[in-house]
Amino acid sequence: MSSALSSSQASPASARITALDVLDVRFPTSEHLDGSDAMNPEPDYSAAYVVLRTDVGDGLEGHALAFTTGRGNDVQAAAIAALAPHVVGLSVEEVCADLGAFSRSLVHDPQLRWLGPEKGAMHMATGAVVNAAWDLAAKRAGKPVWRFLGEMSPEELVAQVDFRWLSDALTPEEALEILRRAEPGRAQRIGHLLDRGYPAYTTTPGWLGYSDEKLARLAREAVADGFTQIKLKVGASLDDDIRRMRTARETIGDGIRIAVDANQRWDVQAAIDWMRALAPYQPYWIEEPTSPDDILGHAAVRKAVSPIKVATGEHVANRVVFKQLLQAGAVDIVQIDSARVGGVNENIAILLLAAKFGVPVCPHAGGVGLCEMVQHLSMFDYVAVSGTTEDRVIEYVDHLHEHFVDPVRIVDGHYLAPTLPGLSAQMHQASLKEYAYPDGPVWIARV
Amino acid sequence: MSSALSSSQASPASARITALDVLDVRFPTSEHLDGSDAMNPEPDYSAAYVVLRTDVGDGLEGHALAFTTGRGNDVQAAAIAALAPHVVGLSVEEVCADLGAFSRSLVHDPQLRWLGPEKGAMHMATGAVVNAAWDLAAKRAGKPVWRFLGEMSPEELVAQVDFRWLSDALTPEEALEILRRAEPGRAQRIGHLLDRGYPAYTTTPGWLGYSDEKLARLAREAVADGFTQIKLKVGASLDDDIRRMRTARETIGDGIRIAVDANQRWDVQAAIDWMRALAPYQPYWIEEPTSPDDILGHAAVRKAVSPIKVATGEHVANRVVFKQLLQAGAVDIVQIDSARVGGVNENIAILLLAAKFGVPVCPHAGGVGLCEMVQHLSMFDYVAVSGTTEDRVIEYVDHLHEHFVDPVRIVDGHYLAPTLPGLSAQMHQASLKEYAYPDGPVWIARV
Repeated sequence: MSSALSSSQASPASARITALDVLDVRFPTSEHLDGSDAMNPEPDYSAAYVVLRTDVGDGLEGHALAFTTGRGNDVQAAAIAALAPHVVGLSVEEVCADLGAFSRSLVHDPQLRWLGPEKGAMHMATGAVVNAAWDLAAKRAGKPVWRFLGEMSPEELVAQVDFRWLSDALTPEEALEILRRAEPGRAQRIGHLLDRGYPAYTTTPGWLGYSDEKLARLAREAVADGFTQIKLKVGASLDDDIRRMRTARETIGDGIRIAVDANQRWDVQAAIDWMRALAPYQPYWIEEPTSPDDILGHAAVRKAVSPIKVATGEHVANRVVFKQLLQAGAVDIVQIDSARVGGVNENIAILLLAAKFGVPVCPHAGGVGLCEMVQHLSMFDYVAVSGTTEDRVIEYVDHLHEHFVDPVRIVDGHYLAPTLPGLSAQMHQASLKEYAYPDGPVWIARV
Repeated sequence: MSSALSSSQASPASARITALDVLDVRFPTSEHLDGSDAMNPEPDYSAAYVVLRTDVGDGLEGHALAFTTGRGNDVQAAAIAALAPHVVGLSVEEVCADLGAFSRSLVHDPQLRWLGPEKGAMHMATGAVVNAAWDLAAKRAGKPVWRFLGEMSPEELVAQVDFRWLSDALTPEEALEILRRAEPGRAQRIGHLLDRGYPAYTTTPGWLGYSDEKLARLAREAVADGFTQIKLKVGASLDDDIRRMRTARETIGDGIRIAVDANQRWDVQAAIDWMRALAPYQPYWIEEPTSPDDILGHAAVRKAVSPIKVATGEHVANRVVFKQLLQAGAVDIVQIDSARVGGVNENIAILLLAAKFGVPVCPHAGGVGLCEMVQHLSMFDYVAVSGTTEDRVIEYVDHLHEHFVDPVRIVDGHYLAPTLPGLSAQMHQASLKEYAYPDGPVWIARV
């Protein structure tokens, strides 16, 4: 296997990253109650959007984003901008040749880390910048990120991971062994992704703001479209949830999995009680039953509601919390998010942890560009880490994809493998202008 | 007991909070290696400083700050500024009469919480604004915050706490019982604080950047000054740490406690190995042996290094993580920080959790204004929660107090109880101007 880290496009060794631009982009989604759940009643899906520019002269840029739900997107943008002095002026070749070192240099800045460490707005900013560098590196290599990663050697992949604080659960040697075990069959799995794609499930029917009729109609459509799992938001009213769950189950029958998602709404006992009330309708997993920081709480819920599975991750701050969720037997499903932790590198660590503990990864997506980015991570996992799609599905939400240059393509309940180079996070220039906050036409019209 | 929540100064019911001002203030402390440790080699101690102004006309303002170590202080300031729309225009009376509701309204903003939830820069911002409101409320009541709190009824105190995600460890009823149990003797303990103060320990001798001679001299001075505990930073070099620990122990003898602080430097096994090597010099506690998010890791370290105690908290993001550190038996010492979590309200929750589990609280302090603010919380704990100072000490670092209007006063190894109204976080106008970043004279001179 050739080194995926060697750039396929020559550039002068003197070439530098010349700019880290940050844009505040917001969509007024709260007007339609798309995306409404028990803790996020009125989100305006937003992106703190980052562009890395270079003086290579090849026209390639690194694009990525941190997702937020509206207010605070400016704070997120400020956090990204704070990283510019760490990035502008770096050698393009050196950054792209050692993204592990680049990632660690941002995560471990001894002053910025005080704002976390490795959590919250500052860590999400690191993730956005690291992801933009992966987008740039993969474009230079002429490959989509899932394949760029999936063609790296086990040694190159291990070098991407920051093992600090992980060694009691996963050592570099164990990571190497996991990756080597998955080496046979990589080419075949790449072929399978290109032919068939990666399984998806859909949250589109289940937002809290939708009527029962709309829920039933969208659930029927989801099954007709080839999805074998849907998800309902729960947690606002038990009576409503029982009725909605029954409606969904009666509409689509027993052969389709129905996950439910409480978006952190409950305390431990409330989660247990609520799920016992929904149990007759066979929920497949309960997602975010309580605080994303509550490892022991998730373990207690899991023990009490089995065989209903427990899932979490979209708000899990970093690999150390994922490590413990696995060590404590607190989750059946690991839900990575492309824009919450420190970028591709930390998500490789989390995929390796999940593989070590034998727990399937079913990513969180939706928002702005989360589907576009996270599909690369699941596909890489299939090719080079877990080697399987069994019991694994990527969340799919049919929102805002039209703003992306390389939008996800869903066919027969599967994400088709992206073929364009990069991380698929790049948005159309027109969208970046139209939805710029607060000065874009969409927002000026609303004041 | 009269209601401490009723303002002692009348103001019109129409009075409003008219401004939330944010200042970026930085001290070039990295030039002298004060504050250097294994993870923070060159901090510029900084404050994202907040001022709440009103139209009451009584001249009273609410002052508080979020502490950072330099870079990123602008991000912290932006996070505080993002809360202004939630605060400006509120009724002064209503905010000060129900600081629990005020605190919850900031913590649970459904959009801003995406940046945490309840962690990192956004949560520290909430803490700063909540603390500024406590400063204002206590000034209006004419009391220092420790006494303002210490004279509230148990019911009033329970109303300050957000029990979300806590009920598996602490219910409102249990909190009430803890507070009622401590009611007898409040007046006596207030008297004791006014006479004698609250025990302190000092970190001044132990920064990593100091020579052995400076360490020995400062350790001797600390004992002469009445301290019964000092602290050394460790974690950069084992050989150096053994030599420094031996130097300290030989200098001050066996009767003085020596805590050590690794500032998160180690993985679990490294922490265990390192502490076993230092054990012959009787370290009292090991502080931050590993990631502040690693509850299970702390539990493993504690089990292995006993009878050396395990302490953490200055980077613990919120009450949910503290809850689990206590549930898992992961810590012997809870180290609250006045400027990390969501302000006075969340720290009341953490003090109640510690009391429930019978674990002593020894606050983290130092930085900018952390000593000034946190003393109020320990004194309140003594008066109305735990009712004891046994095995409890507040960290003391002799840095930057000269910039505060009501600086801490250390006499014979004790913090004297503050008597001026408020949270003691207010800085001199001259300091705010001199150290303003980047345009203050101190920084202009350095460019």
